[in-house]
Amino acid sequence: MKNLLVLFCLVLLQVVTRAQQISSPDGQLQLQFKLTDSVPYYQLSFKNKLLVNNSKLGLTLKEGASLHGGFTISDQQQNTFNEQWQPVLGEVKSITNHYNELLVTLQQPKEKRSIRIRFRLFNDGLGFRYEFPEQQNLNYFVITEEDTEIKLTEDYTAWWIPGDYDTEEYNYTRSTLSAIPALFDKSYDGNASQKIVPLSVQTPVQLKSPDGKVYVNIHEAALIGYPGYCLNIDAKNYTFKAHLTPDGQGNKGYIQTPFHTPWRTIVVADNAPAMLSSKLILNLNDPTPYTSTDWIKPVKYVGVWWEMIFGQKSWSYTNLDNVHLGKTDYTKTTPNGTHGANNSYVKKYIDFAAKHGFDGVLVEGWNEGWEDWFGKSKEYVFDFVTPYPDFDLKELNAYAHAKGVKIIMHHETSSAVTNYERHLDTAFKLMRNYGYNAVKTGYVGNIIPRGEHHYSQWMIEHYQRVVDKAAQYKMMVNSHESVHPTGLHRTYPNWIAAEAARGTEYEAFGGNNPDHQTILPFTRFMGGPMDYTPGIFQTQLSYYKKDDTRFVKTTLVKQLALYVVMYSPLQMAADIIDNYERFPDAFRFIKDVAVDWDDTKILAAEPGDYILTSRKAKGKDDWFVGGITDENARTLDIQFSFLDPGAKYEAIIYEDAKDAHYITNPQAYHIYKKTITSKTKIAQKLAPSGGVAISIRKL
Amino acid sequence: MKNLLVLFCLVLLQVVTRAQQISSPDGQLQLQFKLTDSVPYYQLSFKNKLLVNNSKLGLTLKEGASLHGGFTISDQQQNTFNEQWQPVLGEVKSITNHYNELLVTLQQPKEKRSIRIRFRLFNDGLGFRYEFPEQQNLNYFVITEEDTEIKLTEDYTAWWIPGDYDTEEYNYTRSTLSAIPALFDKSYDGNASQKIVPLSVQTPVQLKSPDGKVYVNIHEAALIGYPGYCLNIDAKNYTFKAHLTPDGQGNKGYIQTPFHTPWRTIVVADNAPAMLSSKLILNLNDPTPYTSTDWIKPVKYVGVWWEMIFGQKSWSYTNLDNVHLGKTDYTKTTPNGTHGANNSYVKKYIDFAAKHGFDGVLVEGWNEGWEDWFGKSKEYVFDFVTPYPDFDLKELNAYAHAKGVKIIMHHETSSAVTNYERHLDTAFKLMRNYGYNAVKTGYVGNIIPRGEHHYSQWMIEHYQRVVDKAAQYKMMVNSHESVHPTGLHRTYPNWIAAEAARGTEYEAFGGNNPDHQTILPFTRFMGGPMDYTPGIFQTQLSYYKKDDTRFVKTTLVKQLALYVVMYSPLQMAADIIDNYERFPDAFRFIKDVAVDWDDTKILAAEPGDYILTSRKAKGKDDWFVGGITDENARTLDIQFSFLDPGAKYEAIIYEDAKDAHYITNPQAYHIYKKTITSKTKIAQKLAPSGGVAISIRKL
Repeated sequence: MKNLLVLFCLVLLQVVTRAQQISSPDGQLQLQFKLTDSVPYYQLSFKNKLLVNNSKLGLTLKEGASLHGGFTISDQQQNTFNEQWQPVLGEVKSITNHYNELLVTLQQPKEKRSIRIRFRLFNDGLGFRYEFPEQQNLNYFVITEEDTEIKLTEDYTAWWIPGDYDTEEYNYTRSTLSAIPALFDKSYDGNASQKIVPLSVQTPVQLKSPDGKVYVNIHEAALIGYPGYCLNIDAKNYTFKAHLTPDGQGNKGYIQTPFHTPWRTIVVADNAPAMLSSKLILNLNDPTPYTSTDWIKPVKYVGVWWEMIFGQKSWSYTNLDNVHLGKTDYTKTTPNGTHGANNSYVKKYIDFAAKHGFDGVLVEGWNEGWEDWFGKSKEYVFDFVTPYPDFDLKELNAYAHAKGVKIIMHHETSSAVTNYERHLDTAFKLMRNYGYNAVKTGYVGNIIPRGEHHYSQWMIEHYQRVVDKAAQYKMMVNSHESVHPTGLHRTYPNWIAAEAARGTEYEAFGGNNPDHQTILPFTRFMGGPMDYTPGIFQTQLSYYKKDDTRFVKTTLVKQLALYVVMYSPLQMAADIIDNYERFPDAFRFIKDVAVDWDDTKILAAEPGDYILTSRKAKGKDDWFVGGITDENARTLDIQFSFLDPGAKYEAIIYEDAKDAHYITNPQAYHIYKKTITSKTKIAQKLAPSGGVAISIRKL
Repeated sequence: MKNLLVLFCLVLLQVVTRAQQISSPDGQLQLQFKLTDSVPYYQLSFKNKLLVNNSKLGLTLKEGASLHGGFTISDQQQNTFNEQWQPVLGEVKSITNHYNELLVTLQQPKEKRSIRIRFRLFNDGLGFRYEFPEQQNLNYFVITEEDTEIKLTEDYTAWWIPGDYDTEEYNYTRSTLSAIPALFDKSYDGNASQKIVPLSVQTPVQLKSPDGKVYVNIHEAALIGYPGYCLNIDAKNYTFKAHLTPDGQGNKGYIQTPFHTPWRTIVVADNAPAMLSSKLILNLNDPTPYTSTDWIKPVKYVGVWWEMIFGQKSWSYTNLDNVHLGKTDYTKTTPNGTHGANNSYVKKYIDFAAKHGFDGVLVEGWNEGWEDWFGKSKEYVFDFVTPYPDFDLKELNAYAHAKGVKIIMHHETSSAVTNYERHLDTAFKLMRNYGYNAVKTGYVGNIIPRGEHHYSQWMIEHYQRVVDKAAQYKMMVNSHESVHPTGLHRTYPNWIAAEAARGTEYEAFGGNNPDHQTILPFTRFMGGPMDYTPGIFQTQLSYYKKDDTRFVKTTLVKQLALYVVMYSPLQMAADIIDNYERFPDAFRFIKDVAVDWDDTKILAAEPGDYILTSRKAKGKDDWFVGGITDENARTLDIQFSFLDPGAKYEAIIYEDAKDAHYITNPQAYHIYKKTITSKTKIAQKLAPSGGVAISIRKL
């Protein structure tokens, strides 16, 4: 017996001291886990070179011993998993989910409790998460910080936005890690709700090694029931450290076991197109539990929106500055004459959508309350069911339905989220009664419950609650000002898109940098589809008002290319429809382009510089190509080798005119047809902040 | 023209500098208002003696100029009002609402905005409030503090509990104002949710002048859409200053105009019975807007409750420490065998209620979730509709209805208020489906939204929301751990009672002082009916478990007297029913006593010492008398002059036995009958913490 015990101890000692190790299926990535002084650490190598050095794992708790030390390893399991799965909507028809897994069980003998850390190593990177099994000594606890580190070994170049508890709506800064502190305070401008986290960056953050041979992207996957995080940066040591979003009391996560955190993801690639092709984040999300998904459909839409954004029309019906829902009698007020969401104007949009084959018409400002909706911390700000007097909900829906178009519901919450939750059922019932199947939600301003943030745990649970409720009513959700997507559209495919980044609207609010759209696919889009709202043809706002110097910082053709470069199964043609009627030949691309795909090839890419993407339309032989560049004119070599060998195709090529320029001559474009095959090559010139868009039809 | 202007200025000057003054209808009280250095002040005299000295008025705002200085008086109006009104349920059939009013309009010329202060002077005291008319420069603002002062002129004796943002569940301390600082830290014990406000007292606070000739009570009336307040105490200067309850961000009131604050009330009387007879707080509330009130009925009830409070039974069905609503399958768990809310036990209560003429049976612990409901900051803690497996909701309701009894719904929220609001409609629909007409709500623990307090503005709005929703469903609400009542039962008579003080349950949680019930009518009950849950016959808990030293600090007869002394149209017979069957003769009083009244006479009273009350049953010639004393034995002279002269009555007198004592011999009582007239006098002996209860029937 004694000998047996000694043997057992020896084995245990081995388990405890030996590092656990797994490789990716292709052997290129190695993950090592170990305890040092009872503290868990991991490191990651790529192509036999250390990528992430000895980095700490654990969590700090509010009460009692924390979960970041005093551990022994009590078990480790290794598994391999390989599946193909089909997304409901997506960039490709089928996705490979292939990884090797290491599951380490850690004991805290003193506290008599255990946690697990699960690592999944794919060919394209690493995901890991903390798991808290239900157990006698671990039922409820409060997390005050997650201690996860990611220590890079070199001074990578990063494309980053500053950490913030409430908004991701910033232009990106490109710098080395070591330069972040010096640039930090210049990295942001004002926002409707903003809580900057000093010396931190948001995820997804895109990184590139000094030698240019490794691309790394850090983010999270399957963010459910847990605060969103950003990364504190220790610039000297090239180290990121998790920083969870707190509530108003400084607490970060209220946990009931069993529970697991979201996955912390490190996507790794040796070239930029491979980075954009990664499905790691989606793969780390669970399959959808929905028994039917046929009600989830891609959406191409126009909307009464851009005219409000740049100031030609108003969301509000009057110029009152103090309204009381249910008391203010709008039929007795003086209309301001600029209200966008009026019957005749909306009908014009419905007619246009029907004529040009759009699925939906978004209408913002249709409901009472827009006079004093912002910045007042007003809780009963909207009821989500009462239209302004000039918006005939019933009639307009009937009109739209008769034309095969659906109006897209708009629920701006003003971040009075308690109020929204009170009205959620009533609001969705109204949508069902009128046959809506999609809602755009909005969270502009500071959150009520006061003290909560857009990315604090309570709000993460709220977004989920809305998506769950929407699913009950078979509605699709396009959430704006919500948390960074984390691949949850695999599990909840009715969460069809989100904003959660600086979209087209900022072209009227201070401007997006010309390289912005070449960065977004490497950052924001890594988590999921974005409702970027491209398609502005009239980029210069002086067209409407002579002294308006604002302009969209792209050429018209770049706007077309965005429909291909930026993947979303929900895409807006965001300009006011008059402008599409002015440029019917260019508009044809927006009409033709698919929004759901069987295949995707990233032909060329470099963050902040250019992206060239081709996609094959779902269930069709049509391909679409989009290429964009930053402020620099550029020639992209397009090789059509993705086409079926031997087949002939008709390509319509939308290109910047020779003298096109995003500042001086954005609407100069040239469209021509060309027969192509898989062997065709085109050296395509792009104007400064220009693009190219190609639709390809099999002959 | 110039002369006219001079004249106008002179008049204006007069308006500005002259103090505004009104008297109470009987001339005993004088209110004076004036500006000193552009700051508003008021003072109050009683019988030509200064009661409240020059006390500041105003509000501090978060942004911009505050509303506490820079004022001119632009208008003043005086009015007289006199009405009689009938409460739906009450202590008397008809109430006189007679006051003289001063309405002062103050301008801030610099900010171009105005507010009003409205004073109402009754014979029994003063009420005043701030009013914010809707205007161009005053639409939205945030209050960080209310600056209202009440400067007394002498060192009054106070019956007080410490200020707290979350609970009123304390024993009272009696001391002079000047002694409060020294006693403050001893004035409270621990509580489930507690946020003590240093050197402050809660309202209603009862005060008595050094010469014993003046009784003053400070509270508030009509608390709607505004935080509850306590009073900071400047003990040297005998001065109270308003202290509003903040939210988690330190903000106190988010205001949209038009708005007015609750009334700040100063009830004044020259004797204690007159204080207890004051209807000032009710009068300052608005008449009910309800078009029908016939669904609001008084309730006498028993309940499955006390056995859980003192620990004989459990709310929870199992001893699990981690349950997931909707996931934990209770049919597969091991019951703990102590669950109170089970079919057979509840039926026993229904049978008892039917047999003895009770309207309702409260059942706590009927629904899933009680295993881990407290102290976990668990949001999805209850769903308010799913019963434990041993509680057959449908059958028990049918059983109760068949016997003419209603089960009273219990909605403990665990203070997860966001969760409760999400389930409110579903919960009320279930109540309607099963024919419930009353709900006991509970708010134990810290509030979610986290950072909010039980008395912060958001919660005040929540309580109101529940009462409004209940009214839609024609339900009555008995709220526990809610804010101090402020007479809102005039406006919302379905808010039939509240706890909001240290009730009988504390006899098992550390004890109520023997004088507690002689103070409550002067404090907590000034705002409205309390669900004190009297009627414990088995006061010594050693009866159940030999070594249990806890005991209810009254005699049995005092428990009977409480049904008269403490006004509430909802009254519980709180003991477990076995004990009533042990003492059927004493129990008869509880069966007989009315809970709704045509008339009330306070025959004698002194806070902290004794109260003797007689009340006439609604629509009947029956009277009931209740008398109680503190820890001192006492003889109360009962004069029955309130009876009809010439008529004869049969009185059943329930008195402490000669050797009764709340500690050593609490169950010693004596019951006898006596024929009485309006000329009868009884010198009634009361044991230490004893009482007397008399039911009187006209012959």
